[in-house]
Amino acid sequence: MKHINPLRALATLFALSLSLASAGVQAVDAPTPQTSMEKQKVVFQVSAGDPKTWNLTLNNAKNVQQELGAKNVDIEIVAYGPGIGMLKFDSAVANRIDEAVGDGVKVVACENTMKALKLTRDDMLASSGFVPAGVIELMKKQKEGYAYIRP
Amino acid sequence: MKHINPLRALATLFALSLSLASAGVQAVDAPTPQTSMEKQKVVFQVSAGDPKTWNLTLNNAKNVQQELGAKNVDIEIVAYGPGIGMLKFDSAVANRIDEAVGDGVKVVACENTMKALKLTRDDMLASSGFVPAGVIELMKKQKEGYAYIRP
Amino acid sequence: MKHINPLRALATLFALSLSLASAGVQAVDAPTPQTSMEKQKVVFQVSAGDPKTWNLTLNNAKNVQQELGAKNVDIEIVAYGPGIGMLKFDSAVANRIDEAVGDGVKVVACENTMKALKLTRDDMLASSGFVPAGVIELMKKQKEGYAYIRP
Repeated sequence: MKHINPLRALATLFALSLSLASAGVQAVDAPTPQTSMEKQKVVFQVSAGDPKTWNLTLNNAKNVQQELGAKNVDIEIVAYGPGIGMLKFDSAVANRIDEAVGDGVKVVACENTMKALKLTRDDMLASSGFVPAGVIELMKKQKEGYAYIRP
Repeated sequence: MKHINPLRALATLFALSLSLASAGVQAVDAPTPQTSMEKQKVVFQVSAGDPKTWNLTLNNAKNVQQELGAKNVDIEIVAYGPGIGMLKFDSAVANRIDEAVGDGVKVVACENTMKALKLTRDDMLASSGFVPAGVIELMKKQKEGYAYIRP
Repeated sequence: MKHINPLRALATLFALSLSLASAGVQAVDAPTPQTSMEKQKVVFQVSAGDPKTWNLTLNNAKNVQQELGAKNVDIEIVAYGPGIGMLKFDSAVANRIDEAVGDGVKVVACENTMKALKLTRDDMLASSGFVPAGVIELMKKQKEGYAYIRP
């Protein structure tokens, strides 16, 4: 024990403390860098009743997958209000919805809107998902860091 | 004083330093968790001139209050451009605006738009609030962490 | 060397460690405050084909510059889908686009949309910029802290 020099030990300890503390400070100043590996996230709102907007939204989702690679991006389409027709069984874009879901796009219908229009899940496309309230879902996704696009 | 062992003191100090530093690092890695107690915030943009969009927006605000509880969410509706008609004294949704404001929804008209259309505050609903510029308000709210919804 | 009191050194070291660690923790709790000097950022999406929306968007950009001062705000307008017509050489708002670009507004056309419509850069306004994909640009800007406005 007598070979340990208290002053040398102090110096070592001080250096350690400094490096630990500065690691914390650096992490604060420089938030996690966004590497190209980071998964992108985007939510599309469909609240319009016209098939033109539905097709535009589906084009957008497809382009995003092509540009970034389907595996590198989480895409969700939320249909509510007059936009709910996009996900009805007789939707003018039914085939494209099936295709998008097959490609990994999450597509959800607002059950609040469905209740107001007396639509049941049986009235909707089999490939469609559901959320209790479309706007709440859009709020939640934005909070989770999703970009918001309203085509 | 001679009873204090410098090496034991060093060990204690080192442990303290370590725990303090790691507390800092942990706080960086795990940002403040969003508890269910945290107040939600959402701003709705009304820039369209059709009463259908106005009603859709008011339905959205009402649904958000019903889903989350009116006390747990700050809701603001910003009307500008062609959307300003929603808040004029002869608005097709005048009663619903009064009701929404009574329920705690903040509703504001863009004074830039009003100037352009030669509207004074007397031309607007008594329950309406005002902001100097609607778009600036929407930018400000997004910066404050409000979700943005454009019905 | 014998004049250094190990206990005093320990106390000093402990105080230093404490202040360094607490600096880290404070920085976490209080994110960089947004001073009035901080540059504002806003991106406008134009995906509608009607000149009314184009004029509304240009009015919005102008108002934002007037309110905040052109030097204090980065404004970008992204035209895609049916909105691409806003930036074609025969656009109904060609003069206003030139003026906006002259005032420092960044205006970009989506090359994905252009390809789909067989438009080349020669078909577009000389003052227009270009991005490979409009929606990707809107996602990127939101990630960079831009407010998003869809007039």
